[in-house]
Amino acid sequence: MSQITVTYPQGFYPIYIGRNIYATLRETLADKSYVVISDSNVAPLYAAQFSDALAHITFPAGEQHKNLQTVNDLYSQVLAAGLDRTGTIVALGGGVTGDMAGFVAATYMRGVNLVQCPTSLLSMVDSSVGGKVGVDLPEGKNLVGAFKQPVMVLVDLETLHTLPADEFASGMAEVVKHGVLDNPELFAWIEQNGHELAPAHPFMEALVTDAIEVKRATVQDDPFELHGKRALLNLGHTFGHAIEQVSGYAVKHGFGVAMGMVVAARISAELNHSDSTLPTRIENTLNKVGLPTRIPAHLDVDEIIAAMGSDKKKMHGKLRYILPRELGECFISADVPTQLIKQTLADLSM
Amino acid sequence: MSQITVTYPQGFYPIYIGRNIYATLRETLADKSYVVISDSNVAPLYAAQFSDALAHITFPAGEQHKNLQTVNDLYSQVLAAGLDRTGTIVALGGGVTGDMAGFVAATYMRGVNLVQCPTSLLSMVDSSVGGKVGVDLPEGKNLVGAFKQPVMVLVDLETLHTLPADEFASGMAEVVKHGVLDNPELFAWIEQNGHELAPAHPFMEALVTDAIEVKRATVQDDPFELHGKRALLNLGHTFGHAIEQVSGYAVKHGFGVAMGMVVAARISAELNHSDSTLPTRIENTLNKVGLPTRIPAHLDVDEIIAAMGSDKKKMHGKLRYILPRELGECFISADVPTQLIKQTLADLSM
Repeated sequence: MSQITVTYPQGFYPIYIGRNIYATLRETLADKSYVVISDSNVAPLYAAQFSDALAHITFPAGEQHKNLQTVNDLYSQVLAAGLDRTGTIVALGGGVTGDMAGFVAATYMRGVNLVQCPTSLLSMVDSSVGGKVGVDLPEGKNLVGAFKQPVMVLVDLETLHTLPADEFASGMAEVVKHGVLDNPELFAWIEQNGHELAPAHPFMEALVTDAIEVKRATVQDDPFELHGKRALLNLGHTFGHAIEQVSGYAVKHGFGVAMGMVVAARISAELNHSDSTLPTRIENTLNKVGLPTRIPAHLDVDEIIAAMGSDKKKMHGKLRYILPRELGECFISADVPTQLIKQTLADLSM
Repeated sequence: MSQITVTYPQGFYPIYIGRNIYATLRETLADKSYVVISDSNVAPLYAAQFSDALAHITFPAGEQHKNLQTVNDLYSQVLAAGLDRTGTIVALGGGVTGDMAGFVAATYMRGVNLVQCPTSLLSMVDSSVGGKVGVDLPEGKNLVGAFKQPVMVLVDLETLHTLPADEFASGMAEVVKHGVLDNPELFAWIEQNGHELAPAHPFMEALVTDAIEVKRATVQDDPFELHGKRALLNLGHTFGHAIEQVSGYAVKHGFGVAMGMVVAARISAELNHSDSTLPTRIENTLNKVGLPTRIPAHLDVDEIIAAMGSDKKKMHGKLRYILPRELGECFISADVPTQLIKQTLADLSM
C-alpha cells in the first residue's frame, strides 16, 4: 500500500493506494456513524464491504443524473438515515459520485466529513484529490459546487477489475495529462508500455501513485484555485468539455480530454511555443492506451467553439488556454486566435 | 457611521452600520461586476440604489420560497446575467435573502464574492454576521447550507423605515438575546426604554452596533461552530424553531425565539441554574418591545417536542439546550428532562 499526504491551509488528509483496503475506513472512523453514497452500477459490487454503515444510498448511474434533483433526493435520504453533523459521508464510485456525494457532504447541515473511495481510474487520479466537488446545471457542467476537502481518500485498485475498458482508457487520459504536465518519466513509461496496461498490472499502484502525486503537488499550494498553477490541470479540458457538451455527453470525459490535449498540443506547436514533434508524441501515446485523438465529424466546430464560451474557467470574461511547452511543462495563454482553434478543430474532425 | 471588523482564520471583513451607506459598495467594488439578489418586497424599494449591477434578480418573498427550487432558479439567472467566478453577489434583503443568496454565492461556480446588505433588523443583528448561509428542506429549516464569509456587510438603518412593525419586533428578539448572552447593559437599556424604540430612534445605530458586536465576539473564534461558544447563539432557538415549524411558520422567527427564550429561562430557574426573577425580567423586556411570550394554544406540545428531535443542533444524536445562568452568561446543558420541557411548554401555552 502506498500513501500520499495532501496538506491544505486548514489541515491535511491521507490518500491510501493499494488493493483490498476498504477495511482502513473502519479502523480509522472507529465508532463514527457514516452513510455510503454510490450509484446503481457500483453499489451492487462494493457497497457490501461497508457493512456497518447507517445506510447505503444509491442513485441512478450516469452523468445525466448529476443534477440538483438527485442532490435533493440524496439530502432527504441522508437525513432519513439519521446522519447528524458529526457524521461522515463515504462517496463510493466514479467522478459523478465523488462530485455529487462530495457536494452533499459540503452542504448537508453546512458540511459533514467526507471520505472519497474512487472506483474508476479517472476519479482515482483526478477528481478525488483536490477538494473540488460539483453538480451540473442544464447550462453546463459543474456550474454549481464547492471546495470540500475529504478527511481521507481510499484508492482500492481492485475496483478497476469491474471498470469497462473504455472507462479505463478514459482514466488513462488524465494519467497521460499528468505526465505531460509534470512527470516526463511517467509519460515516457506510458509511451513505451501503455499497451500492456490493465487493472492487474503490477505497475498500476506506482502509476496511479505517480499520477496522484502530480495532482497533489499542483493543488497543494492552490487549494482554492486562486493562482495559475492549478489551472494547468485543465490542460485539454476547455476544448474537451466543449466537445463532450456538444456531443450531448456521448463523448466520455477522458476521451474529450484526450482530444482536447491534441488540440492544445497542435495549437502550441503551430504558435511555435513547442517542438513540432510534441503533438505527434502525445497523439501516439494516447492512442497506445486506447484513446481517440480525432473529433467525431458530426460534431459541429462552431458549436464546440460556442460551448467553450460558457466554460466557467473564464477570467474577467476572457477564455484562457493551457498549452504544453514540452513534456513536464505547460503554461497559460489568453492569446490564441479563434481562427486557429477553428482550423485545428476542423483538421482533427473525422 | 460605525464600523466593526470581523476576523476569521483566512481573512477579515468590515461591517458598516449607518444611514444611506450603499454608495460604499460602489466605492469598494470599483469596477468589479456584481448582481443584486432580493425578494419581491425589497427589490422595488432599494434595488435601484445599485444602478450599475449586471442584473437585479428577484425571487418571490417568503420563507416558503427559501428552497432548492428557488436556488436552482437563481443559479440560472446569475449565469444568464453573465457573472463569472471573479464576480460578486449582493444579498439585499432579510434573512431569507441573505441565507439563500449567500448559499448561491457559496456554491455558484464553487463560490463567488458575497456582500450582505441586510434590510431587516433580524438579519442586521444576526444572520448577516458569521457566515452561515442555508436553505430549507421539506423536513426542516436550514438543513442544507455552508459557511460563507462575506467580503463586506452594509447595514443601512434607513431600510428599517419600510419594515413592518411585527418584523421590527421580531428582530428585537435577537437584540434582547444578545443582551442576555453577553451584554447586561444592552439588556438593561431595553428593559428600561424598549417601548420608545423605532427605526428613527437616535440610539438605533448604537443598539444595532452593540448587538452585532456580541455576535462578532461569539463567532470570531468559532467560525465553523466547532466549539460550544457559538452554540450559545442558539439560545431560544431549539424551542423556537420547533414552535415555528409546528405552526407551519405562521409564528415569525423572532417571535419563536422570544417564546423559546422564555422556555429556556423558566427551565433554567426550575432547575436552580438561575435566579427565580430572571424568567420574569426576560418576559417583561420581550413584551416591552412588542414580542409575545406565550405559545399559541393550538400548537400541540407533543408535536413541538417531536419537531425538536429533527433539529440539526443535535450532537451525537443528543439534543443540547442553551440555558441562561444570569444576564450576560448562558451555558449548554444536555440534561433537561423531557417532562420538564413538556410542562414548561404547557404552562406557556395559551
